[in-house]
Amino acid sequence: MQAEAIFTGTEMLLGQIINTNAAFLGRELAAAGINLYRQVVVGDNLERIREAIAAARQRADLIIVSGGLGPTEDDLSREALAAALDLSLVEDPAARENITRYFTARRRSMTANNFKQALLPAGARALDNPYGTAAGVYLEHEGKVYALLPGPPWEFEPMVTDRLLPLLKPYGARREVIFSRVLKISGLGESAVEEAVKDLLHGDNPTVAPLAKPGEVTLRLTARAGNTEAARQLIQPLEAAIRERLGEYIFGIDDETLEGVTGTMLAARRLTLAVAESCTGGLLAHRVTNIPGSSDYFLGGLVTYSNEAKVKFLGVEPEVLAAHGAVSSEVAAAMASGVRRAVGTDIGIGITGIAGPGGGSPEKPVGLVYLGIDFQGRVEVRRELFLGQRESIKWQSTQSALDFLWRSLRGKK
Amino acid sequence: MQAEAIFTGTEMLLGQIINTNAAFLGRELAAAGINLYRQVVVGDNLERIREAIAAARQRADLIIVSGGLGPTEDDLSREALAAALDLSLVEDPAARENITRYFTARRRSMTANNFKQALLPAGARALDNPYGTAAGVYLEHEGKVYALLPGPPWEFEPMVTDRLLPLLKPYGARREVIFSRVLKISGLGESAVEEAVKDLLHGDNPTVAPLAKPGEVTLRLTARAGNTEAARQLIQPLEAAIRERLGEYIFGIDDETLEGVTGTMLAARRLTLAVAESCTGGLLAHRVTNIPGSSDYFLGGLVTYSNEAKVKFLGVEPEVLAAHGAVSSEVAAAMASGVRRAVGTDIGIGITGIAGPGGGSPEKPVGLVYLGIDFQGRVEVRRELFLGQRESIKWQSTQSALDFLWRSLRGKK
Repeated sequence: MQAEAIFTGTEMLLGQIINTNAAFLGRELAAAGINLYRQVVVGDNLERIREAIAAARQRADLIIVSGGLGPTEDDLSREALAAALDLSLVEDPAARENITRYFTARRRSMTANNFKQALLPAGARALDNPYGTAAGVYLEHEGKVYALLPGPPWEFEPMVTDRLLPLLKPYGARREVIFSRVLKISGLGESAVEEAVKDLLHGDNPTVAPLAKPGEVTLRLTARAGNTEAARQLIQPLEAAIRERLGEYIFGIDDETLEGVTGTMLAARRLTLAVAESCTGGLLAHRVTNIPGSSDYFLGGLVTYSNEAKVKFLGVEPEVLAAHGAVSSEVAAAMASGVRRAVGTDIGIGITGIAGPGGGSPEKPVGLVYLGIDFQGRVEVRRELFLGQRESIKWQSTQSALDFLWRSLRGKK
Repeated sequence: MQAEAIFTGTEMLLGQIINTNAAFLGRELAAAGINLYRQVVVGDNLERIREAIAAARQRADLIIVSGGLGPTEDDLSREALAAALDLSLVEDPAARENITRYFTARRRSMTANNFKQALLPAGARALDNPYGTAAGVYLEHEGKVYALLPGPPWEFEPMVTDRLLPLLKPYGARREVIFSRVLKISGLGESAVEEAVKDLLHGDNPTVAPLAKPGEVTLRLTARAGNTEAARQLIQPLEAAIRERLGEYIFGIDDETLEGVTGTMLAARRLTLAVAESCTGGLLAHRVTNIPGSSDYFLGGLVTYSNEAKVKFLGVEPEVLAAHGAVSSEVAAAMASGVRRAVGTDIGIGITGIAGPGGGSPEKPVGLVYLGIDFQGRVEVRRELFLGQRESIKWQSTQSALDFLWRSLRGKK
């Protein structure tokens, strides 16, 4: 099955937003064995979208259109598909239901233009969208498959995986599939990772591709084979060789995160966690609580920006603050122990540092961060010096904190 | 001048990399007054690149190709351009010089295929590339302009601004510039916003385009004129008309955020803030502390996931929790007042809700969130019912909390 994707939105042509749907769709189709061989971006213009659909159906078996399903007058994908295939638009009860349900749940009133979203090209069916008012549209017509999906990524992504791909099962059975496994690495920089696997980077099938993100490096292993299992087999010895060299830095695979991996370890071992944050301002608690079920092990977090709050809520001694300053190894340790005691948990983490842009000095520059962990009474401290801007320093600090937690949990099995 | 851009690279079709060149090029061309009205992504395939160039020259005056200029066998853009225009390839001394210089500077040895990069379609000139071996290619042919630029962003971006745009001055780096202003709206849905400004959506210059994000709607006002000041003048009456209708929902412009706008108001009025979070798990504190200087007004945050923590740190009465449940209007109010008292601030915000996926019931479904605000002793509560997944519900909840704060600050001048 050959696919072509059309992304609608003048804001992409003006460079006001980055088209992340394209990469997401590419990955998902590749994994499903469907060959996406062309992407097109056009503005919110009926004739251009129609023309793009008409051209695509000359080349492809599957035509996917992202965007243009909203209630506004520059949402034109339904109309363009109908025009390209010379079909009329008819109101679909399921799509109307999707809209009514959405508004009822929010207790908001509907306007007439919302029902525009229930008009589908004749013969098409609505794809239920739990994340917005715009139902997707699925149409099989003269041997080709057409799918219209909402443009916002938080709607587009689940609509691809949960709605479209299951419908393509009968088609997508190419013999070759592309299978990737991502190894996620923490505590080692990109060049050190590359150096360690240098001799493995030139393979053709499977391939290895390193990618660096703030506080994390990933290695993507990709193989092509007749089926997923065979591709997986191709990757296995390569993965084993990499784990042999870098095992102690690999915390997870694919979509796993440090907050997810540590959460699973905490839950399995019935350990509880509390965090005290200064420069990260709540980001660590936010990341920990992004994990469903985190309320089982995460009992509380304190964002103690001021010295007074550190004293009052964490019991950090004013003398320690006076002697060493709020950004110090001693205060990080006292925050970790203090939050552990105050909330009553097995583990406490304390973070104190200078996220910038202000507040730095020659002795304590922007990016200096101390992290403390109190694991059932045993306290360790780590010092970091991060580069970057405020949000990046906050992120890297929480990445280091979660790495610290992961290593502590691993070390104390 | 009408432009079309072609991005080559199978890795983009597979979703292994995100095409950031597209957004960059869009912004730069818009700023230079050139209308980019179509983007195409194709794989590293001679025939498909040739076909994309051939189709583009039917529609556009300027055809820009990104990628495919390297030394390897799947770098095919030079060949594709020559084939599309029926031109031969000839070695260009300047391009050869670019390659030799690059290797000499790095003390690396060249291979024969590196000189493939010096072959240009007859009549074309090389565009010096200081950042890599791949010279750009610039060709004027039968009234159209063709530019081939290297694909890596760190080469593509300076090649656009430093090499291509100066050459386009005589054409369209037209006297016209495109100027945009974004009005940011909170507390009103996309279709209600559109309903209010419906009659303004059909203008040609300036234009108005609505865009929805979770918990936020934006209206982008765009004008074309001879210079930025003239474009700004065109936008002014339109902006005034929109503010007349939607003023009470417009919290900012362009890159402004609710956390930034409320932060400025708090700082200016020397008011202090503390937050108590349950279902948002620290995200509100994180967003507030993303603003540089927030330590002046944000004194602390408490993430009280458990009932015990709500009682211990916030002084929520166990009877209130027992009578109404943790997710209730009463507890949201008690959390707001409790954190205000505990931290000692002018304003306290409390959030309690069910982020899911677990924990919902028919009476209290996933997405139900209560928000309380205690503003110098006066308490208000808001109820929300959000759709979406855990992280989206957390985000929407903080968006509502910041909207609540913004309205309270505006109402109490």
